[in-house]
Amino acid sequence: MKKILEDYKNGKVSLEDVLDKIKMLPYKDLNFAKIDTHRFLRKGFPETILCKGKTTEQIVKIFQTFSNEKHNILATKANKDIYLALKKKIPDVIYHKQAKMITLIQEKIKEKKGKILVVTAGTSDIPIAEEAVVTAEIMGNSVEKCYDVGVAGIHRLFDIKDKIFDANVVIVVAGMEGALASIIGGLTSKPVIAVPTSIGYGASFKGIAPLLTMLNSCAEGVVVVNIDNGFGAGYFASLINR
Amino acid sequence: MKKILEDYKNGKVSLEDVLDKIKMLPYKDLNFAKIDTHRFLRKGFPETILCKGKTTEQIVKIFQTFSNEKHNILATKANKDIYLALKKKIPDVIYHKQAKMITLIQEKIKEKKGKILVVTAGTSDIPIAEEAVVTAEIMGNSVEKCYDVGVAGIHRLFDIKDKIFDANVVIVVAGMEGALASIIGGLTSKPVIAVPTSIGYGASFKGIAPLLTMLNSCAEGVVVVNIDNGFGAGYFASLINR
Amino acid sequence: MKKILEDYKNGKVSLEDVLDKIKMLPYKDLNFAKIDTHRFLRKGFPETILCKGKTTEQIVKIFQTFSNEKHNILATKANKDIYLALKKKIPDVIYHKQAKMITLIQEKIKEKKGKILVVTAGTSDIPIAEEAVVTAEIMGNSVEKCYDVGVAGIHRLFDIKDKIFDANVVIVVAGMEGALASIIGGLTSKPVIAVPTSIGYGASFKGIAPLLTMLNSCAEGVVVVNIDNGFGAGYFASLINR
Amino acid sequence: MKKILEDYKNGKVSLEDVLDKIKMLPYKDLNFAKIDTHRFLRKGFPETILCKGKTTEQIVKIFQTFSNEKHNILATKANKDIYLALKKKIPDVIYHKQAKMITLIQEKIKEKKGKILVVTAGTSDIPIAEEAVVTAEIMGNSVEKCYDVGVAGIHRLFDIKDKIFDANVVIVVAGMEGALASIIGGLTSKPVIAVPTSIGYGASFKGIAPLLTMLNSCAEGVVVVNIDNGFGAGYFASLINR
Amino acid sequence: MKKILEDYKNGKVSLEDVLDKIKMLPYKDLNFAKIDTHRFLRKGFPETILCKGKTTEQIVKIFQTFSNEKHNILATKANKDIYLALKKKIPDVIYHKQAKMITLIQEKIKEKKGKILVVTAGTSDIPIAEEAVVTAEIMGNSVEKCYDVGVAGIHRLFDIKDKIFDANVVIVVAGMEGALASIIGGLTSKPVIAVPTSIGYGASFKGIAPLLTMLNSCAEGVVVVNIDNGFGAGYFASLINR
Amino acid sequence: MKKILEDYKNGKVSLEDVLDKIKMLPYKDLNFAKIDTHRFLRKGFPETILCKGKTTEQIVKIFQTFSNEKHNILATKANKDIYLALKKKIPDVIYHKQAKMITLIQEKIKEKKGKILVVTAGTSDIPIAEEAVVTAEIMGNSVEKCYDVGVAGIHRLFDIKDKIFDANVVIVVAGMEGALASIIGGLTSKPVIAVPTSIGYGASFKGIAPLLTMLNSCAEGVVVVNIDNGFGAGYFASLINR
Amino acid sequence: MKKILEDYKNGKVSLEDVLDKIKMLPYKDLNFAKIDTHRFLRKGFPETILCKGKTTEQIVKIFQTFSNEKHNILATKANKDIYLALKKKIPDVIYHKQAKMITLIQEKIKEKKGKILVVTAGTSDIPIAEEAVVTAEIMGNSVEKCYDVGVAGIHRLFDIKDKIFDANVVIVVAGMEGALASIIGGLTSKPVIAVPTSIGYGASFKGIAPLLTMLNSCAEGVVVVNIDNGFGAGYFASLINR
Amino acid sequence: MKKILEDYKNGKVSLEDVLDKIKMLPYKDLNFAKIDTHRFLRKGFPETILCKGKTTEQIVKIFQTFSNEKHNILATKANKDIYLALKKKIPDVIYHKQAKMITLIQEKIKEKKGKILVVTAGTSDIPIAEEAVVTAEIMGNSVEKCYDVGVAGIHRLFDIKDKIFDANVVIVVAGMEGALASIIGGLTSKPVIAVPTSIGYGASFKGIAPLLTMLNSCAEGVVVVNIDNGFGAGYFASLINR
Repeated sequence: MKKILEDYKNGKVSLEDVLDKIKMLPYKDLNFAKIDTHRFLRKGFPETILCKGKTTEQIVKIFQTFSNEKHNILATKANKDIYLALKKKIPDVIYHKQAKMITLIQEKIKEKKGKILVVTAGTSDIPIAEEAVVTAEIMGNSVEKCYDVGVAGIHRLFDIKDKIFDANVVIVVAGMEGALASIIGGLTSKPVIAVPTSIGYGASFKGIAPLLTMLNSCAEGVVVVNIDNGFGAGYFASLINR
Repeated sequence: MKKILEDYKNGKVSLEDVLDKIKMLPYKDLNFAKIDTHRFLRKGFPETILCKGKTTEQIVKIFQTFSNEKHNILATKANKDIYLALKKKIPDVIYHKQAKMITLIQEKIKEKKGKILVVTAGTSDIPIAEEAVVTAEIMGNSVEKCYDVGVAGIHRLFDIKDKIFDANVVIVVAGMEGALASIIGGLTSKPVIAVPTSIGYGASFKGIAPLLTMLNSCAEGVVVVNIDNGFGAGYFASLINR
Repeated sequence: MKKILEDYKNGKVSLEDVLDKIKMLPYKDLNFAKIDTHRFLRKGFPETILCKGKTTEQIVKIFQTFSNEKHNILATKANKDIYLALKKKIPDVIYHKQAKMITLIQEKIKEKKGKILVVTAGTSDIPIAEEAVVTAEIMGNSVEKCYDVGVAGIHRLFDIKDKIFDANVVIVVAGMEGALASIIGGLTSKPVIAVPTSIGYGASFKGIAPLLTMLNSCAEGVVVVNIDNGFGAGYFASLINR
Repeated sequence: MKKILEDYKNGKVSLEDVLDKIKMLPYKDLNFAKIDTHRFLRKGFPETILCKGKTTEQIVKIFQTFSNEKHNILATKANKDIYLALKKKIPDVIYHKQAKMITLIQEKIKEKKGKILVVTAGTSDIPIAEEAVVTAEIMGNSVEKCYDVGVAGIHRLFDIKDKIFDANVVIVVAGMEGALASIIGGLTSKPVIAVPTSIGYGASFKGIAPLLTMLNSCAEGVVVVNIDNGFGAGYFASLINR
Repeated sequence: MKKILEDYKNGKVSLEDVLDKIKMLPYKDLNFAKIDTHRFLRKGFPETILCKGKTTEQIVKIFQTFSNEKHNILATKANKDIYLALKKKIPDVIYHKQAKMITLIQEKIKEKKGKILVVTAGTSDIPIAEEAVVTAEIMGNSVEKCYDVGVAGIHRLFDIKDKIFDANVVIVVAGMEGALASIIGGLTSKPVIAVPTSIGYGASFKGIAPLLTMLNSCAEGVVVVNIDNGFGAGYFASLINR
Repeated sequence: MKKILEDYKNGKVSLEDVLDKIKMLPYKDLNFAKIDTHRFLRKGFPETILCKGKTTEQIVKIFQTFSNEKHNILATKANKDIYLALKKKIPDVIYHKQAKMITLIQEKIKEKKGKILVVTAGTSDIPIAEEAVVTAEIMGNSVEKCYDVGVAGIHRLFDIKDKIFDANVVIVVAGMEGALASIIGGLTSKPVIAVPTSIGYGASFKGIAPLLTMLNSCAEGVVVVNIDNGFGAGYFASLINR
Repeated sequence: MKKILEDYKNGKVSLEDVLDKIKMLPYKDLNFAKIDTHRFLRKGFPETILCKGKTTEQIVKIFQTFSNEKHNILATKANKDIYLALKKKIPDVIYHKQAKMITLIQEKIKEKKGKILVVTAGTSDIPIAEEAVVTAEIMGNSVEKCYDVGVAGIHRLFDIKDKIFDANVVIVVAGMEGALASIIGGLTSKPVIAVPTSIGYGASFKGIAPLLTMLNSCAEGVVVVNIDNGFGAGYFASLINR
Repeated sequence: MKKILEDYKNGKVSLEDVLDKIKMLPYKDLNFAKIDTHRFLRKGFPETILCKGKTTEQIVKIFQTFSNEKHNILATKANKDIYLALKKKIPDVIYHKQAKMITLIQEKIKEKKGKILVVTAGTSDIPIAEEAVVTAEIMGNSVEKCYDVGVAGIHRLFDIKDKIFDANVVIVVAGMEGALASIIGGLTSKPVIAVPTSIGYGASFKGIAPLLTMLNSCAEGVVVVNIDNGFGAGYFASLINR
């Protein structure tokens, strides 16, 4: 800006040009801040696309735009058809079947030091857990998984005590009654991110039961994301992993 | 009946009398069965009055009726005013302040052998737990209490491991996220009766959160009663205590 | 432990070995307790697998693991495809079509003395009732069934009065308004386990109506399990059947 | 109208006057229809005022307006203060304490032949039942009451079998699980009007539980009114009583 | 009974036989009452089967049982496949496509005098309305239909004013906001039965919106049945039609 | 009317004829008013048909009726099959694939001066936005679209600042958390119509989340229509566009 | 800005001063836009304070700040205590008792031409209606009120037909079943703003019933604001009143 | 342990003593881990007491126990009476009126480097925000507050842009529509903890509206705690603040 004003004083640019520039400033400035932020963030932050509710055509188009800018890309809630359509245009995309995610790696991922532990209560919670895993990994985190830890068999939990104490952040994925988050939250002093899943039947009401359980957790240090939002948990875990 | 018919054959009673008796039979018979059942049950089964929604006058009247029949009586959700009104008429009534219950013992309670363990997650769940305790005790059960066991501090749970294994039935009273029932259900092979409480705030929604948690318990051997229904839990526990 | 310590005193084992052992103790001990418990329980207690939310591959694998340990196995919410996939690997599995369950009997089931009565309000509640029946039977219980007893035709209820009085535990399976549990709870002094079903339409809201009805039962001695959780009812009934 | 037109033809009224009258016709005519209807209905149909949400001043004013027209008047959900305020202006008003209703009788009530039976499940449902009773009586019906019939003690229901068969219409008032409506609906072929009450605690959710139960009644011939709407039930019962 | 007792006195039957008979009495008597009732009712009352939740095999079997007793039969929520399966066994069954009902007429239907008017708010409510129509007709009622009357175009309502005043009972079937029941309830002094339908989208929440609207109707003389329960409305209307 | 009365005075029409006419007046008059209104409105107001819940046959029939009167017609929530069936009868119909609407233009649309801006939060909200666009355009409005403006990237919102200030009315279509309506409501002093969509997963509960968000908007000047009701928003926007 | 730059070129201000000014620009500019907007809007737009949830001290302070800038001020959901506290500091404040609002007029209100009609279904809805009235009036609108129009007595609605047709915008305030909005929406081609109220009992669920009714309105041209948000309706009505 | 074993080998302690010690080990060991953890954590981690649901007696007792161990103590949801009762026993307690918290500082708090920013949407959200502030401060965090930032006036948000970018963690406290969390989440790449509050009226449903909004946030990096759980947010923020 300084230079423009000096140029203007020196007659190199007209008053109109300066006024035009200033008119654009608020947005440019804002964009600049955002871009700056982005530049900082982009080290490991992928572009993300929520496929649910979008047509395959829309997804392919968005994917191509991001891909042209050489970003790493992450698409969530993606079925195989979307993957196959993408594959034709961008052969390097990878499909994570369990996680229902598509990734494209175009930038080197800078690795983080701390570990993220992803725990599930049951076998059925694995797809959502995998969403968190894939997300955390593409953001440079080292991820450890402990699936089907359960609540009913609390001794299984003790078998993973060391992993819990080693982790920098713990993601707990649980449907049905979702009690696992409170229990792990009570065992560790590290932040716990709870992901309710829509797994279950009857009065689990598509995830309302574990959502309420987790929100009411009497263990300190537990926060909650949306039902089935494995991606959000992985992303937030990466933000707070050191 | 046999005798009546023989009397009738022998002319001791008229046809009309027999017909009258038979007319009453369905109800009498039914009543008889009930009374019989009652006689069997009454060994330790109190008459119960839910005070909520009744006027003090109504409660006093019902109490007096039962009291005249020399039954043991149990009134739930009773405030102190009701107690004071009752006390004037029936000086032997006892008020259980925490449990908000009034009892009157007029029959010897036959003691059962097995133990019932009543556990609460927090301090605030104690009033509902006490409702279960008073109920179970008036029905002849030996009751052990472990309050404020929590979930967040799972080690507190281990301190009571022996009590859990000793008990014949476990009643778990918990508000907020209600996860304790699942955990205890996973530790023991004895029946667990879960009582959600309306304790908590925000998304506990006056007991909906722990109710759903408990209904969705992935631990086998856990059943649920109504929110804040300590009485129901104590009663059922007594039914299945050996 | 005593022996180890004596061995250590006698120099048979090193200090390191003793410390290693002690380090493992909490878990071993816990496992031991669990194993012990399990040993006690296994007399009639099957291993159970909830198929809903698991892939066929996962189910087959879990089934095989349990099967290798010669346990009795019970899989719930299983469709025919899962059965056919299992059948190929483990020819002895049996499919219970109505109950949507798969069982494998490898251990002799120890029979219990008391009877469990399973009652349904309507014809449509039978699949959930059958889930309770199959569960209770594999756990060694003698089960009696009375289906389509209804509430609207209370006289049908009286036809089964004797069966109700004979049973040690009654499981009541009902959708729509779910009133049957209260009525049977009022007739008998035996424990009643109520199973709401998602049968019905409109304001039954997939089982919320009977669930609330049953939770609010004014009959003493009624407890509730999750909507459509026939297995849970059968399991709990077996726990309390003498 | 005929007369007006003849008067007009005969020059007694001007064209403008006739046009004015006709302009008013749709409304007058409609009013007329209503009035006519009213005239027919008024034989026993009171004017009604729902006090809830209105200021005492408003209630007194509305009451006075109706009272000037010599109608019978019925005010619902009225506390004692409203009654006392009214009493000062209209000394003949009567307060029905249990029903929380105020009535004023100024016209002879034409009595109906058939009987309406009002049944409650519990003692706490009586205030709502009384609302139905007072309403039905002011509309000329002969009302019989059976309170605290319960569901848990089905034999109490049998004691009133004759009253049920005698009634032309049955009103069933029940909170908690509300099962009584279905049972009576199954016993009788007469129309049953179910009134859920907000009595209860926990998962009765201020009347949602009995409301859903009653809506899902599998007994034919049961209809439902709003929670705590004793008035509506009494009114409808009167409409269909012969 | 009298005869049996006299026979017994005369030695024609043994004491055992009399006792056996008396033992059966409560039920027989009850059955008798029911049968008597039934006999009275059967003049126009069909046997009904709710197909939803039942297998085709079960439906066919129940249908055949009723059909053997020469009753009129009504099956609700029946798809075409059920009809075709029934047709093979009982060629006289009729399929009501819009109403999704199957009927079988084997007894002469006794016709009633009064008229039942069935009104729908929209075109989409017609299937549920037809359910009411078919039900009312098989019970001997003369039914008039006014479909798509709407609320938004209140003038359409006035076109049917005469039909409303002529009817003895009005059934109002409406989804979305369900306001039509209140409006018709305000126009007529005849009983109005409101049927909420699951028609609509978004915040109609599968019928909750019209259900609440109808329950809260400020018009006197409106009662409600379950969402989509056209049958219940038709049945109740027939009960109160004179 | 005046003429009729003069004719009557002059003996040209009989008293009976005049009375007949007057009898019809309320309705005619009302119809007239409506027709008059309609005539005024019809300048740009299409006839509309909600396809959801109607059979294709019904839709075709209604469409043809309107089409015969040479109105412009708008059908909402229409799938392609309906379009193809219509196309056969009325070749001029146009299918708006994204909006799932069918239109038929038979009258010249009078164009309005002000602009309506339609904004979506995400790509997935476009179908509902297009419903608003097609509706507003057929009613003569000039519509500008800004899709995928988001909330997370508030700078995208600033890029459209000018469009927001230019618009006479803004329609904001958003699923998930629906916050966009409040933000735009805070930026502009023009009326904002918020349309929640059922897009999202988990705790968006098919549109309940954005619906509640929008209803609770702390920005003044925001009103709400039903979930997914793009048509209603477009229609209302047109009503208030100058 | 132009002047500053020329001053800078002419050496009247330093480069630093210009840079400082530009740094502030985004916000100033934004503020400017807002201020500009505000200036335009302020002709009749009051500053508003929602009292609910604020302490009296906070309210007085905010009120004083606004009052110093000589704005017109509107405080909603204000009880009498708040008014009395304000009165001491700012004697000119006016309390609108029914509306629970406090106003302070310091600027001349520019009057609008069109009329806003505020209609209530019942007497109890008046406080919320008055909130709309006071709001609309302080924004310069001419307001007409029609209270207690009802739905049950549709003829009362016809008495106000002319007022409906005269109004530029109609605000409909209704609790219980909230049907009035649809009916008025069907009668007029003017925009209708529906305000659900929390008036009612039982299944009105504190306004959920009328809210859903209004959202599902099948009448075109109806939008909805939050439950009890009379202010929002008055404000929006003013925005669209011409 | 090592020492004990050596002592045992050397005969300083008996076998029984060693066995006793080992018997205690699982718990001790566990306690040890916990204590160790605690020791690490205690640098800034207070003991916390949720007052809601506890009697004043219970609170005082718990407080005294913690106070004897010289911990820092934090009591939440505490009214003034509790404070006054505590003050008598422990004069050093401090009452935070807005936050409804009581603190007792007995240990030096170790200060953290990063800053936590606490933002509220409205004035009414301040009490919950203050709960987060007091919690974060007692845990050694430097806290910055920006209250009443709003959503409706987005320019106010830009005034705090620098504070947002400076903070290490942002806590967003908002009732009503709760949109602020998404907007701030979209502006910053730092973790955002969203706290829904029960502030608002009507369809905010005691915090359900902002809870759902926040759970559905389309901004990455936003997690949610229970309604009104300012403490939980402050605690979690401290866990992840560097």
